[in-house]
Amino acid sequence: MGAMLRKLRIMQNARGTVRLIEVVFPEHTNHYGTLFGGQALQLLSKAAFLSGRSFARSDVVMARCGEVLFHAPVRLGSTLVLDTQVSRVGRSSLTVRVAGSVQDVATEALTRVLDGEFEMVAVDAAGRPVRLASPPCLHEETFEETV
Amino acid sequence: MGAMLRKLRIMQNARGTVRLIEVVFPEHTNHYGTLFGGQALQLLSKAAFLSGRSFARSDVVMARCGEVLFHAPVRLGSTLVLDTQVSRVGRSSLTVRVAGSVQDVATEALTRVLDGEFEMVAVDAAGRPVRLASPPCLHEETFEETV
Amino acid sequence: MGAMLRKLRIMQNARGTVRLIEVVFPEHTNHYGTLFGGQALQLLSKAAFLSGRSFARSDVVMARCGEVLFHAPVRLGSTLVLDTQVSRVGRSSLTVRVAGSVQDVATEALTRVLDGEFEMVAVDAAGRPVRLASPPCLHEETFEETV
Amino acid sequence: MGAMLRKLRIMQNARGTVRLIEVVFPEHTNHYGTLFGGQALQLLSKAAFLSGRSFARSDVVMARCGEVLFHAPVRLGSTLVLDTQVSRVGRSSLTVRVAGSVQDVATEALTRVLDGEFEMVAVDAAGRPVRLASPPCLHEETFEETV
Amino acid sequence: MGAMLRKLRIMQNARGTVRLIEVVFPEHTNHYGTLFGGQALQLLSKAAFLSGRSFARSDVVMARCGEVLFHAPVRLGSTLVLDTQVSRVGRSSLTVRVAGSVQDVATEALTRVLDGEFEMVAVDAAGRPVRLASPPCLHEETFEETV
Amino acid sequence: MGAMLRKLRIMQNARGTVRLIEVVFPEHTNHYGTLFGGQALQLLSKAAFLSGRSFARSDVVMARCGEVLFHAPVRLGSTLVLDTQVSRVGRSSLTVRVAGSVQDVATEALTRVLDGEFEMVAVDAAGRPVRLASPPCLHEETFEETV
Repeated sequence: MGAMLRKLRIMQNARGTVRLIEVVFPEHTNHYGTLFGGQALQLLSKAAFLSGRSFARSDVVMARCGEVLFHAPVRLGSTLVLDTQVSRVGRSSLTVRVAGSVQDVATEALTRVLDGEFEMVAVDAAGRPVRLASPPCLHEETFEETV
Repeated sequence: MGAMLRKLRIMQNARGTVRLIEVVFPEHTNHYGTLFGGQALQLLSKAAFLSGRSFARSDVVMARCGEVLFHAPVRLGSTLVLDTQVSRVGRSSLTVRVAGSVQDVATEALTRVLDGEFEMVAVDAAGRPVRLASPPCLHEETFEETV
Repeated sequence: MGAMLRKLRIMQNARGTVRLIEVVFPEHTNHYGTLFGGQALQLLSKAAFLSGRSFARSDVVMARCGEVLFHAPVRLGSTLVLDTQVSRVGRSSLTVRVAGSVQDVATEALTRVLDGEFEMVAVDAAGRPVRLASPPCLHEETFEETV
Repeated sequence: MGAMLRKLRIMQNARGTVRLIEVVFPEHTNHYGTLFGGQALQLLSKAAFLSGRSFARSDVVMARCGEVLFHAPVRLGSTLVLDTQVSRVGRSSLTVRVAGSVQDVATEALTRVLDGEFEMVAVDAAGRPVRLASPPCLHEETFEETV
Repeated sequence: MGAMLRKLRIMQNARGTVRLIEVVFPEHTNHYGTLFGGQALQLLSKAAFLSGRSFARSDVVMARCGEVLFHAPVRLGSTLVLDTQVSRVGRSSLTVRVAGSVQDVATEALTRVLDGEFEMVAVDAAGRPVRLASPPCLHEETFEETV
Repeated sequence: MGAMLRKLRIMQNARGTVRLIEVVFPEHTNHYGTLFGGQALQLLSKAAFLSGRSFARSDVVMARCGEVLFHAPVRLGSTLVLDTQVSRVGRSSLTVRVAGSVQDVATEALTRVLDGEFEMVAVDAAGRPVRLASPPCLHEETFEETV
């Protein structure tokens, strides 16, 4: 159990691990009064961008959006928490997993509502792909437990 | 060749086939002056929503975003054309493919820049899944040629 | 009847004839829960811009908005369909008619809710008016029937 | 000249005479870096709405946009001043003229760039037209000079 | 009483005294259906910017937001009136007071809902502070009465 | 030094301590290409709202914006990091301090650009102030060091 705690601590400090928090306002909703799917994808994309930029320490662009699952509708006024992790590192591209959860106002308990995966490419000022500088090693097997 | 033309005509009238056109304005761009990936996903989602609603003849919600590929950056001021097709019909869900192209101003030629797939679920006024009414048959093999 | 169909086909291919589709979301509405008049004008303007750019095969700017009629309020969640036609072609300017209709979700029937007219001017990269290149002839009398 | 000044004072207190001021930010611009025509129409509509509501002392909806002229492009960062006047009063509708000017930062001189006319209808809480309560008399001939 | 009226007239012509009017639309509201505090601050900032620019006759940037009080919630659909006054003039900075009021639709009576203070700095085209050109004298004691 | 580290850990878990991350996009900028002051205040307000809601475990509204300082302009494309702390707890109100920093892409070093203070009031579903439930004790003296 001590080992598991240590792993958790490492991951929270891991490069590319960022947390975004957003309030769902009327400007984000559809005509059902819930978060519009397209707005959800935009928020996940912003999280993936920030995660990729933090990991690569350079600008990044989106090359591919992998599967994104919408588990439940997100109501107007909700606190939406987005957590990212870098799950794969290539020569100039990397994969970011983003988990979206609604945070209960009274208990702060998180309920997972969104899961997505994005592939970002590190670019230079002219927009050309650049090699990722000294990627730190990743222990992907531990990611599954902590998402 | 006459047969192929007939197929094309059928598909252009097919339920769920819609075309969205958008101009890329500063509000859609990132700090590179090109369409932000998250905005692209939002536009594709709107196309998938309208396609699903047109096919189902009822309201729909997004259940899943399949793979989306970003082939090339889309510059400020571009005309972006999004074309949808329904590629799979289930009991209450359906899959929409969306192809995004930049239209050249001088020649009107289309260059494919985005490809995505979205799964939509038909819902009633209370947001509960409903059975799709009499799905028209789809000839999926012909879709590949016409995207 | 064969002749009428042929005319219809020609018009669907006519330069400058574009169709925009939009969902009315909370960000477009006023405090009555219907499409704000100013947002309607913005959507019509975008349609006129795309129509003019498609016809002129060059960039265009708006010089004049003619009369726009609001026949009925447009409710939150509506599918709004905007159809354009070029009704007049001058030396460097052209007139675009835009018809806006709400599409019924269950029947896909269109109900006309907006009618507008916009004058666009073709411009070069420096924003100076340019002569419209070889304007194709227009058969305005057939437009009336197909709006 | 004293008479003219008195007329001016009356008009500045006239019901339905409002002034809106706006800064042109990137969110309002097109890909030329100037105010998008559709955004200009939206700002004019907001001015017409506020003018009509102030005159009618009840809510109003837009029934018709008359001619709007775009005299010159409006650059990013400009101060845009919109002045309204009620030029016609009917049973339940009224006409609002809106003049848009760019204000020079150094001299505060106004240069007219937009002119429009909007017809608004007074409505009750259910959106039904209501009779305008005791319309104050208008001296339209003096309006022409002061726009 | 004649003296008081004269003072009022002077102040209405005072440099930097501007009035902004806004309708509260769904895009400005939070999940309570009232104006979001952050949106209120953005509107006050725009008023302070325009006031500062008008006074300085040059571009300005915000250096400091002083205390802002929210006296009452502002409902969707309200007419919000923002009035500014320059209350302090320094070498290159000035202080703008902004008062926000809701205007009753039926009576046009104003109810104060917001009070704020902003410090703006005059800048040249490169963003460097510049000395304020010949600041007109201010009679701050009269401002208190007219806010 | 061990004691100091312990304090830091406690504060990172403290109720009401949240971190928001944002990318500065064209929609947030003024005509100088930097973050508009009003947009900065809106982002700080969102952080204060989320911090207050997390601390109070109930909904909150903004009652007062204290002083906000703008230390430096924030360029388009910047990563803006907002950190909050609850610095005062009253019967139904609390004060949130928000610190905004630009994060360097290459080094991830933070440069402080914004400092603000907001007073939030806990409210029930009807918008009436409610007593804060069992406020955890605050050690304000340690906050100064960790901002």
